[in-house]
Amino acid sequence: MSSSYGNNIRLTIFGQSHSPAIGMTLEGIPAGKRIDFEKLNDFMKRRAPGNNAYSTPRKEADLPEFLSGVVGNVTCGTPITAIIRNTNTRSQDYNILKDVPRPGHADYTGVVKYGPDRDYTGGGHFSGRLTAPLCIAGGIVKQFLEEEGIYICSRIASIGGIEDEGDLVDYAQKYVLTSSGQNYLNPGAEGEFPTISAEQGEKMKAFIAEKKAEGDSVGGIIECAVFGMPAGVGDPMFDGMENRIAQIVFGIPAVKGLEFGNGFEAARLTGSQNNDPFYLENGQVRTKSNNCGGILGGITNGMPLIFRAAFKPTPSIAKEQDSVNLKTMEETKLVVPGRHDPCIVPRAVPCIEAAAAVAVYDALKI
Amino acid sequence: MSSSYGNNIRLTIFGQSHSPAIGMTLEGIPAGKRIDFEKLNDFMKRRAPGNNAYSTPRKEADLPEFLSGVVGNVTCGTPITAIIRNTNTRSQDYNILKDVPRPGHADYTGVVKYGPDRDYTGGGHFSGRLTAPLCIAGGIVKQFLEEEGIYICSRIASIGGIEDEGDLVDYAQKYVLTSSGQNYLNPGAEGEFPTISAEQGEKMKAFIAEKKAEGDSVGGIIECAVFGMPAGVGDPMFDGMENRIAQIVFGIPAVKGLEFGNGFEAARLTGSQNNDPFYLENGQVRTKSNNCGGILGGITNGMPLIFRAAFKPTPSIAKEQDSVNLKTMEETKLVVPGRHDPCIVPRAVPCIEAAAAVAVYDALKI
Amino acid sequence: MSSSYGNNIRLTIFGQSHSPAIGMTLEGIPAGKRIDFEKLNDFMKRRAPGNNAYSTPRKEADLPEFLSGVVGNVTCGTPITAIIRNTNTRSQDYNILKDVPRPGHADYTGVVKYGPDRDYTGGGHFSGRLTAPLCIAGGIVKQFLEEEGIYICSRIASIGGIEDEGDLVDYAQKYVLTSSGQNYLNPGAEGEFPTISAEQGEKMKAFIAEKKAEGDSVGGIIECAVFGMPAGVGDPMFDGMENRIAQIVFGIPAVKGLEFGNGFEAARLTGSQNNDPFYLENGQVRTKSNNCGGILGGITNGMPLIFRAAFKPTPSIAKEQDSVNLKTMEETKLVVPGRHDPCIVPRAVPCIEAAAAVAVYDALKI
Amino acid sequence: MSSSYGNNIRLTIFGQSHSPAIGMTLEGIPAGKRIDFEKLNDFMKRRAPGNNAYSTPRKEADLPEFLSGVVGNVTCGTPITAIIRNTNTRSQDYNILKDVPRPGHADYTGVVKYGPDRDYTGGGHFSGRLTAPLCIAGGIVKQFLEEEGIYICSRIASIGGIEDEGDLVDYAQKYVLTSSGQNYLNPGAEGEFPTISAEQGEKMKAFIAEKKAEGDSVGGIIECAVFGMPAGVGDPMFDGMENRIAQIVFGIPAVKGLEFGNGFEAARLTGSQNNDPFYLENGQVRTKSNNCGGILGGITNGMPLIFRAAFKPTPSIAKEQDSVNLKTMEETKLVVPGRHDPCIVPRAVPCIEAAAAVAVYDALKI
Repeated sequence: MSSSYGNNIRLTIFGQSHSPAIGMTLEGIPAGKRIDFEKLNDFMKRRAPGNNAYSTPRKEADLPEFLSGVVGNVTCGTPITAIIRNTNTRSQDYNILKDVPRPGHADYTGVVKYGPDRDYTGGGHFSGRLTAPLCIAGGIVKQFLEEEGIYICSRIASIGGIEDEGDLVDYAQKYVLTSSGQNYLNPGAEGEFPTISAEQGEKMKAFIAEKKAEGDSVGGIIECAVFGMPAGVGDPMFDGMENRIAQIVFGIPAVKGLEFGNGFEAARLTGSQNNDPFYLENGQVRTKSNNCGGILGGITNGMPLIFRAAFKPTPSIAKEQDSVNLKTMEETKLVVPGRHDPCIVPRAVPCIEAAAAVAVYDALKI
Repeated sequence: MSSSYGNNIRLTIFGQSHSPAIGMTLEGIPAGKRIDFEKLNDFMKRRAPGNNAYSTPRKEADLPEFLSGVVGNVTCGTPITAIIRNTNTRSQDYNILKDVPRPGHADYTGVVKYGPDRDYTGGGHFSGRLTAPLCIAGGIVKQFLEEEGIYICSRIASIGGIEDEGDLVDYAQKYVLTSSGQNYLNPGAEGEFPTISAEQGEKMKAFIAEKKAEGDSVGGIIECAVFGMPAGVGDPMFDGMENRIAQIVFGIPAVKGLEFGNGFEAARLTGSQNNDPFYLENGQVRTKSNNCGGILGGITNGMPLIFRAAFKPTPSIAKEQDSVNLKTMEETKLVVPGRHDPCIVPRAVPCIEAAAAVAVYDALKI
Repeated sequence: MSSSYGNNIRLTIFGQSHSPAIGMTLEGIPAGKRIDFEKLNDFMKRRAPGNNAYSTPRKEADLPEFLSGVVGNVTCGTPITAIIRNTNTRSQDYNILKDVPRPGHADYTGVVKYGPDRDYTGGGHFSGRLTAPLCIAGGIVKQFLEEEGIYICSRIASIGGIEDEGDLVDYAQKYVLTSSGQNYLNPGAEGEFPTISAEQGEKMKAFIAEKKAEGDSVGGIIECAVFGMPAGVGDPMFDGMENRIAQIVFGIPAVKGLEFGNGFEAARLTGSQNNDPFYLENGQVRTKSNNCGGILGGITNGMPLIFRAAFKPTPSIAKEQDSVNLKTMEETKLVVPGRHDPCIVPRAVPCIEAAAAVAVYDALKI
Repeated sequence: MSSSYGNNIRLTIFGQSHSPAIGMTLEGIPAGKRIDFEKLNDFMKRRAPGNNAYSTPRKEADLPEFLSGVVGNVTCGTPITAIIRNTNTRSQDYNILKDVPRPGHADYTGVVKYGPDRDYTGGGHFSGRLTAPLCIAGGIVKQFLEEEGIYICSRIASIGGIEDEGDLVDYAQKYVLTSSGQNYLNPGAEGEFPTISAEQGEKMKAFIAEKKAEGDSVGGIIECAVFGMPAGVGDPMFDGMENRIAQIVFGIPAVKGLEFGNGFEAARLTGSQNNDPFYLENGQVRTKSNNCGGILGGITNGMPLIFRAAFKPTPSIAKEQDSVNLKTMEETKLVVPGRHDPCIVPRAVPCIEAAAAVAVYDALKI
């Protein structure tokens, strides 16, 4: 089913942007796992809008209510369901969109697929808001992964072509990963704009602000690393780690590209440049480089798992755009109403981590 | 299961490089579909090795024997199984590899996952040879798609950084797609090195030959376009067209990156640059650009579906490499034996088309 | 996943007897389907407890709240989630059961599977209460089936060995099935004790009351017929109609047997007695008898689909029983606390219909 | 998919009665498992026809050829595929059946589902011959189960109403189960007609012979017990042991009923009669009776798992029957050609054991 993911655990996401609630069901989690709800809420807040100049001014509490699968704060082995009520919706903002699809959004494809009875308000089931339930699931299993010594850390690698500096793996291993589970960059700002280079981060913020002022939006790239992956996780062919991560990451709206290790760059190299030679370190097999991103034949090799996801710019912009009125079948101009992020990338960072956490936990078959 | 793909049809691939046979089972194909076996064999030959200077000199007939699911050349509605016998195997080439994993291959991850009883000969189930059953399945459903007016066409977009010229969509629509189903570039050479620019193709071939002479290998990028896609195909969230294509394309060995439409380039753009404005053409909704690659919200919009896959260079190179003897746990040098492609990209073109065909046919829910 | 069912639609059930809520998610329902909520609530009431002498005096409103997937009363094509709050729980009734498993219940197997952190209160996820979400899903798709001319009708075939009289198919076709969708027996009592013979029904009720007075409980058999099934529905082998119905019906607590057509009786017959001869009726292929229950080779033949499910007696009885204290590992006596149905069969009738409706709708691949 | 079964392992069965081959793919078996091929062939022979008066005189070698997944006789962790060539086919026997469906067979439902291009020869994919691949898979995992101390043993419980005597569990535990893995009744006859009472067995054989002489056929019931099941196997709701076994057992042609423990008999009992009281035996929790068949809430309780499957009489009989010519749409008489078992039950015994073995192994999640 389209809104479900996973083989060993299964995540099902439900809800529309303006339905009474959105939520998720997570099946296959063993009994007896403790959930730190405060830590989960902190994780959810990294995704929440309204915190700063470069995200939408909408305020959403977005704290989940658990309906089943936990007793107190301990899992009981049966499906975990949590919901978030939709309270701050302004559906009237969307009336114009009933007949005039927004360029870059799923409005037109939604009407072709679902017909006139689709829920177009707020983007319906296609809304970026549906990443909140993904973050509930990911925030939970991320805690379980940390108990196994597996940490997920990510950064904004670039925005609008402005690139961060430094190496995520090196930086994270030196400065970020701690036993306290504080595993995101820029802790002072609660990881809200995680770059290694604060200077480059400021340039990116300035660029977002500039484009916002022009009524425009910008895209970017998020890099994510999974540390502590044991070797031997994943399966050959269609359930390799790349396939598994791809299936969930492309479920995050606006992702249009995905690469592992040095990815597209590998296509320019020779085998002698790209192969990662083996060596021994304290009796353990390691590779001198990590061009493969920790995955060979779909299976982890014990090195950090690395991937990058490309996000297109937010399609909702203030500028007037060309569209078509599907009712009258006439060309028309559209100015998209509502409040929107000029750049989705900062808020997408925890979503990428959540997706990685769910994919990794599923592959681990714990 | 790891070696199965699909929701509405299901493709299962079995076999190891040196087992008695490799093959595939394809479930869910309706009864009464005619298979043109000659055309299927022509498609298989595009993947077959040994045809030219830039691929392995191994000769493999690779023509499938059908065991079930067809009566004469017509499907009967129940599972279709076809096999290819493995005849030209030289397992002794691989004895050294039992204990010394090849850099860039799945040898080490295989032994961690499956232990000493894995089939290491010829790469086992991880071998690129397992793309032959994928091409059987893809070659079949590609024929069925063509009956629906859906054509898949691809090109080598770059090799070792040398880029093809021209636009695949424009070129294919003008010169390639015909009602005869001849839908690959460079028909004179049976699509064996499909570039738009013959000149750039020659440069790529020269580069491959140069690196081969050095005992090295090269990577590249394949671009694929699906023409005639109806709008409304695919599903939101985890079964979007991107997710579906990703799950199968990352199953092709050596793929490390995947992007749709303008992909990673979109991350550098603004919304006003990247959004595809709608307009009307003969009463049909179209977009002026196709930066989204024909997919919005996981669902096709009726424009050509476009993606690019990045292949790393063949890990098997003649140069000496650093590795580890897993039995003695000592560092060692390795020269990979056997005959290998200096560049897998030309033979991977039909594999990419096969993968796209299976993913699209599955999503169509015919 | 254990708590999910279906291939073309997917039903996921979540919740424990005493968690904040129970509920269900139904994926794969097309957009534009109208749900009659009043009719759905009437259907739910047939399962609700507390209506009469032979069911538990617990009062449960059990009316679902829809969180997603419907706009107004029309489906929008994305996952439908509905929940029922658990309000009338008396968890303290179950304290004694933490260590002493009730014979015939899943208490012991639950603790072996899930360990000390299982939710034992009220039976947890094993509770018969979890059939309420099944009835939400079944009540919805039953409406959609009726639009296709497919009606599901069932009766109590026997209780404690007392058998109903008459033939369900004949009776239903003559007296019950109407275009108004009123498709259960004994309409005066809202189908609460559906037998064909009111006299036999009274005997069953008296027997239940008698056993209740003794602190005991009774089992029974429910017969279910699906009318209007088109021929050609279902699949060979593991997705036949029998397999599909079995997979969902055995998910209803207390079902221990299932048979199709004349079922176990067929094992006593000869081929010439049991085969259903074909004939023509108004140009349509029919069978003179329906010993196969409308299914041949897993696929419907256009005759009514018939099955019977055997329910064991409610394991919760007032009589003292032998058990074991799992904490002290000593044998002990147990008197089960709480309020329970002396016979689950009458309330299970809509559950069987719901299960049949979900299985049939899924198989129809609408 | 219809011809696939399993969550943790996956069995896919392909082939038609008269296609070049039939076979199976088994995914998810770990590497390093040794298969005793001689023992597997002995198991296959129990299903093979032509051994005696009460089965079809067709001779089928039915010994599988392994194409992948094993190296020597050891699994290598990737999909195991084995095939059986179809050599002794007499398709011309079936020409008359192209237009005239046999009562009790899937001929009519097959043509409705698949249309004129179905493979009607020999029953196609619906043929009982497709239980041979099931026995390959079951015969393999049965060996693996025996390594875990889990033995499967079954008997013919009745044929044509003639019932065996004795209790399968008691008898098997005393006389049959041995460490040598010889775990079927009547070892002298290689388990070919497994009853506890030889006298009752002779009566059954005589009855089969009598009905065969009349050109008729008979049905029967097989009882199966799984010994050594650990407690805690199976899942609640739709993946309970009953559901799992039902999904595979109803895939065996001619099965029309299935019950666990005392099954339909439980519907006649009271709770105090049917509940299985707990007690301690050598510090282990046991139940005094086993009316639940070793399953509570879908999960094993450590007692033997017991089920019974009802088989209808073979639909192919020599007597003239009423049918319809689907081409001319006229009623007609039919005498079924070909060679058939007058009673399928003896040959179905290993099929039931194979189905149980696959279901149990899948549920164990080894």
